[in-house]
Amino acid sequence: MAVSPLAPAHMPKLPVIGGVTFAAQAAGIKYQDRDDVMLAVLSKGSTVAGVFTRSATRSANVLDCQRKLALGLDGPAAILVNSGNANAFTGHHGDGSVTAICTALSDITQINPDRIFTAATGVIGEPLPHAKIVAKLDDLYTACAPHGLDAAARAIMTTDTFAKAATTTVTIAGQPVKIAGIAKGSGMIAPDMATMLVYIFTDAQIAQPALQTLLARLTDKTFNCITVDSDTSTSDSLMLAATGASGVDATDNPVFEAGLHDVMLDLAHQVVKDGEGATKFVTVKVSSAANNDDARKVAMAIANSPLVKTAIAGEDPNWGRIVMAVGKSGAKADRDRLTIRFGDILVAENGWVADSYSEEAGAAYMRAQELNISVDLGLADGQATVWTCDLTHGYITINADYRS
Amino acid sequence: MAVSPLAPAHMPKLPVIGGVTFAAQAAGIKYQDRDDVMLAVLSKGSTVAGVFTRSATRSANVLDCQRKLALGLDGPAAILVNSGNANAFTGHHGDGSVTAICTALSDITQINPDRIFTAATGVIGEPLPHAKIVAKLDDLYTACAPHGLDAAARAIMTTDTFAKAATTTVTIAGQPVKIAGIAKGSGMIAPDMATMLVYIFTDAQIAQPALQTLLARLTDKTFNCITVDSDTSTSDSLMLAATGASGVDATDNPVFEAGLHDVMLDLAHQVVKDGEGATKFVTVKVSSAANNDDARKVAMAIANSPLVKTAIAGEDPNWGRIVMAVGKSGAKADRDRLTIRFGDILVAENGWVADSYSEEAGAAYMRAQELNISVDLGLADGQATVWTCDLTHGYITINADYRS
Repeated sequence: MAVSPLAPAHMPKLPVIGGVTFAAQAAGIKYQDRDDVMLAVLSKGSTVAGVFTRSATRSANVLDCQRKLALGLDGPAAILVNSGNANAFTGHHGDGSVTAICTALSDITQINPDRIFTAATGVIGEPLPHAKIVAKLDDLYTACAPHGLDAAARAIMTTDTFAKAATTTVTIAGQPVKIAGIAKGSGMIAPDMATMLVYIFTDAQIAQPALQTLLARLTDKTFNCITVDSDTSTSDSLMLAATGASGVDATDNPVFEAGLHDVMLDLAHQVVKDGEGATKFVTVKVSSAANNDDARKVAMAIANSPLVKTAIAGEDPNWGRIVMAVGKSGAKADRDRLTIRFGDILVAENGWVADSYSEEAGAAYMRAQELNISVDLGLADGQATVWTCDLTHGYITINADYRS
Repeated sequence: MAVSPLAPAHMPKLPVIGGVTFAAQAAGIKYQDRDDVMLAVLSKGSTVAGVFTRSATRSANVLDCQRKLALGLDGPAAILVNSGNANAFTGHHGDGSVTAICTALSDITQINPDRIFTAATGVIGEPLPHAKIVAKLDDLYTACAPHGLDAAARAIMTTDTFAKAATTTVTIAGQPVKIAGIAKGSGMIAPDMATMLVYIFTDAQIAQPALQTLLARLTDKTFNCITVDSDTSTSDSLMLAATGASGVDATDNPVFEAGLHDVMLDLAHQVVKDGEGATKFVTVKVSSAANNDDARKVAMAIANSPLVKTAIAGEDPNWGRIVMAVGKSGAKADRDRLTIRFGDILVAENGWVADSYSEEAGAAYMRAQELNISVDLGLADGQATVWTCDLTHGYITINADYRS
């Protein structure tokens, strides 16, 4: 599959994060001749936080991670992820697969099985051939090394068109603290569904409750503000591990929070940029809503509207469809107070197309690869920003055409 | 544009409904060489009810109709609809257009302007050239005749690929009572948005409050149970007029309600069958939900999911995407109690694919033009049925490609 036209020019060089090692191997779960399992081993001072899909049909792995995080345990930990099989909707067999993997990995590593977190992504409804993974665990553990994060990023891909990573270093009390993360996005294989997996590592030292709170707060501003096609995976998982190896306590530290936010937003944008069939990256900003919830409703209604997304694909400055999406959002809106902008171009105000607007200027703007759509509701000070992509023939081809 | 492959073989023969006459004319609003205005004139014993889009950016015509219905007036009435221009998001100019048309028609017909109901469908954000309509009102009124309903059905089309009508006759107290309706669906023209307009006429005699209650109740079971692409128009209007010409009081009559339900459901299905790019007509039935609201949430999550709809377009029995949609719906669900059927084929049960299911049987079923997807949640007795179509390259072509 061709690399997305929105892919970054190159993957960033990832740093070594003290306190965590990585390995990736080919277990032959579904793909041939490529790595499909990754392992991260976290030293004993590490804390781990996670946020997961809210789907009522979430996968066995997600349910297992949620249960283990709730135990609030300390000590060494591990994260094991496979691609090629989602282990979702596989009944009690799925639960058994997770247990088998965690038990075997615990025997090898002496890590408490309740500190072993797993994820799976790929085909659903087929039993996970966990014996193939178990057979690789010795090799994986032996191969674990500080430099393995980029290989891990490639091992968790399904039909992603590029590997996704982001990193930053912040300075706290004169000391460098590193943050690095990887993600996989909404690639697809038949019969399959989108799954987003994200793993972020830092050598900061942060107590677990604070780490979880921080992760949840930043998720609401980053990964929960992206949408490709409004569908929600059974397997979405985002985990953050803080090893403490830097010796720097970053609990409730605003500099650390800003750095982590940047890494999460970068990864979230990369997931959108690898959205199925995407040719445009779109920022939707809503301001002056009755409140922030209303602003988010309007922004998501625009970002999820098939009519808006197809207009963007067609490079059509179709502001009427923006008006439609505002109207259907359920948020408070007043036709005559609405202002719409494409980039800096004033499109509509006072309940009608702006006097200064020209269709030619709008059409020229829509040819850009990155677009900004702004809606000001003129009511109060609620605001929200979300990111999405266009809806193209490529999406239909990827999701419908493989039987034709 | 080619006629939808799901179009009925022919339009039904529409009866004369006592107490109402129709005319259609070409006013040249946007289209050339075709009728684009329809007028229905209702005799003085008529009652009128209406339901409209809940959009916060609804059109000037919709706002005007809602205000007038709330007045609860009696006497002769008229319905005037134009195609080619939606008169939506046209600021105060739009309100002025409605007033100009209603005032002129009132002068000609002596009907109270507050009993004149209008609708407009077509391009949005452009001022309605209402003078062109006003210039045709004399001709329209003069041409009004009992047999004009089929011409009216054609006059309100935009890019619908076929004219939509349905009719039935029920017998109440030994007397025939006629019901006939027309609809336009979700065709598109650039830069435009989908609009659904429905007008139903009966010679039954029904008091206005009962008529409104009946219409709202049946709308919830028919037009509110269809979805093409989850987007909501600024102009959706559904009006029901009862002329009383049959002399039969059908207030709170279950036989009349059943007949009206059939006409409304037939029209609603025709709107789906003319959905943009549609090649499959899909019935989604959800049973054994915690309650009816939950059942509807699940049914709509399935019917609106781009992944489910593209799988159907690809004739792919992708039950994993059904599981995904159940999970994201927000309704109570238990993976291990879920049962999924394609037609009579048991696909999944007990949290996994059914032992008896074969992918070949599923794939063969998906080749049919009309499909039934059933989901049993195994919880309580909530149920819902909704109707939708698939998501194809045709949808993208209609909505994105006109600039390429």
